[in-house]
Amino acid sequence: MTTVAAYAAPAAKAPLERTTIERRAVGEFDVLIDIKFAGICHSDIHQVHEGWGEAIFPMVPGHEIAGVVSEVGPGVTKYKAGDRVGVGCLVDSCRECENCKAGLQQYCTGGGVGTYNALDKNGEPTYGGYSQKIVVDENYVLRIPDGLSLDVAAPLLCAGITTYSPLRHWNAGPGKKVAVLGMGGLGHMGVKLAHALGAEVTVLSQSLRKKDDGLRLGADHYHATSDPKTFEELSGTFDLILSTVSAPLNLDQYLTLLRTDGAFVNVGAPEEPIALNLFSVIAGRKTLAGSGIGGIPETQEMLDFCAAHGIGAEIELIGADEINEAYQRVQDSDVRYRFVIDVATI
Amino acid sequence: MTTVAAYAAPAAKAPLERTTIERRAVGEFDVLIDIKFAGICHSDIHQVHEGWGEAIFPMVPGHEIAGVVSEVGPGVTKYKAGDRVGVGCLVDSCRECENCKAGLQQYCTGGGVGTYNALDKNGEPTYGGYSQKIVVDENYVLRIPDGLSLDVAAPLLCAGITTYSPLRHWNAGPGKKVAVLGMGGLGHMGVKLAHALGAEVTVLSQSLRKKDDGLRLGADHYHATSDPKTFEELSGTFDLILSTVSAPLNLDQYLTLLRTDGAFVNVGAPEEPIALNLFSVIAGRKTLAGSGIGGIPETQEMLDFCAAHGIGAEIELIGADEINEAYQRVQDSDVRYRFVIDVATI
Repeated sequence: MTTVAAYAAPAAKAPLERTTIERRAVGEFDVLIDIKFAGICHSDIHQVHEGWGEAIFPMVPGHEIAGVVSEVGPGVTKYKAGDRVGVGCLVDSCRECENCKAGLQQYCTGGGVGTYNALDKNGEPTYGGYSQKIVVDENYVLRIPDGLSLDVAAPLLCAGITTYSPLRHWNAGPGKKVAVLGMGGLGHMGVKLAHALGAEVTVLSQSLRKKDDGLRLGADHYHATSDPKTFEELSGTFDLILSTVSAPLNLDQYLTLLRTDGAFVNVGAPEEPIALNLFSVIAGRKTLAGSGIGGIPETQEMLDFCAAHGIGAEIELIGADEINEAYQRVQDSDVRYRFVIDVATI
Repeated sequence: MTTVAAYAAPAAKAPLERTTIERRAVGEFDVLIDIKFAGICHSDIHQVHEGWGEAIFPMVPGHEIAGVVSEVGPGVTKYKAGDRVGVGCLVDSCRECENCKAGLQQYCTGGGVGTYNALDKNGEPTYGGYSQKIVVDENYVLRIPDGLSLDVAAPLLCAGITTYSPLRHWNAGPGKKVAVLGMGGLGHMGVKLAHALGAEVTVLSQSLRKKDDGLRLGADHYHATSDPKTFEELSGTFDLILSTVSAPLNLDQYLTLLRTDGAFVNVGAPEEPIALNLFSVIAGRKTLAGSGIGGIPETQEMLDFCAAHGIGAEIELIGADEINEAYQRVQDSDVRYRFVIDVATI
């Protein structure tokens, strides 16, 4: 066991404060990682606020982790001390179900283990990346290629893979018209990745406030959803709409923007049910779907793709004492485009 | 112009009564069909009742038409007098949009022309199959193979293609577990077709009342959705659920029955919006989709498939004077499984 400093929410909705936690001894297949950077994901805030149901406290959030290996267990073959690595939303899964065997650990049916706010296979609570060190089984550790700085790589472990996986699954690429709905932490990664994959990219954002950024990051077009003309002009346009927003939407209206056989894929989602007229999918054989993060092999593929294309997240680096303020700013949509904690300041 | 006898609703929600209508003269590319049988589709009733919006009256419903060619225009190359033919939901489309060119006339973006309750390209109202004759452009006429009796073939033109098209599009076949939700006019065709395509077929019906029929038509399993155990036992089971019901559903509950990457496809739909929690599709990367009838080439493919597999609809043949009673019985779900009007009785 190792005692490490961390930032934790002691109770639901409470501000995060500095504390210490215990990390398990490095086991046979474990990797000990000195965490350098940890991204702040909107879902960290949802979980601290128990917006997704009862949670485990104290909670050390953080599933966008980038660091350097400092020690490995005797059975570890993939990593050695000094390697640059990342950890995303999963630190374990059943490894036996059909999905785990197919590399789709994110859909593990035998019980995946979240990086925080979860219980591991020994029934111990997991603690995330807002901490100095973490111990993770090597099979759930990703390699961060040399070309990627660790600070801008951290958000790739959630925001990157969460957008990359559906873009790949629904074949974003040359000849395809892809809209990214929402221009936040996930959305800005969606724009970069869809552009790098070769698609024609349109941002659909509430206003034109971030238009310059959108075009700079790779969007070909940028439209405000607050303007009713957007829905007239773009009717029947898109092969794929990637929705990164968690506010309630008029789905029937957005589905009109798809062409025949198009897909509207949710990676963000409101906590409450939304209303849908099923004729909106019957007309034009449309798909309403969802996607959650990505599997371990695809996360590695995404990191390699990002390195090859020079893609990192756009970040605001903060000290640990700014976490609570950053949480408020995320809720106010006031971040361009991801807060990343410099873990040296914990 | 030819005057022919027909059954029409003179006004919204009014009972159907015998009347006469005019059919256009046989044009260069037209086929004149002596209608022998016309199926009664639930959507006939929806339209007479203006459940789908304002409609055109008098209305002669009927888009499940089987008959024999009695005359063809000079430019017609595909059919000749004496040929056994069918007409489905469409009698024309723009022929120029991407979908028309791809044989997906059902998703024509330039303005498809419905078989009834629509205006043709000359602005004249169209009248459907509850009538003695119909004149249709040869490109929207289907050939009914010799192996199929006209009476059981008629419902294939809507109920058949509406289920066949999504079963094919979502790859129902060997190794796939397919559920057919609802055991009515569409559902019973879904069971026959999914079975013939080689899928393992489960019927999900409100009760076990029609279980014997379901198993006889090709289902491997039959479960009552009124039994909560059904949802426990079948959690995560299906690759595809084909929903033929138009009653409001608890979609979140049904989506739990899909395995990872499974699809819930609506061919029936309630008139009112339904509630959906988007996390139901995010977990397991699930698809909620829709499908409407099928294109002309696929409708011919379906008829040929049905002939090859000896598949027709299960019908109750009625006289024209029983139409209004049949409408009531369809609304009471009291038909096994499709009413077909013997047009000789009009």
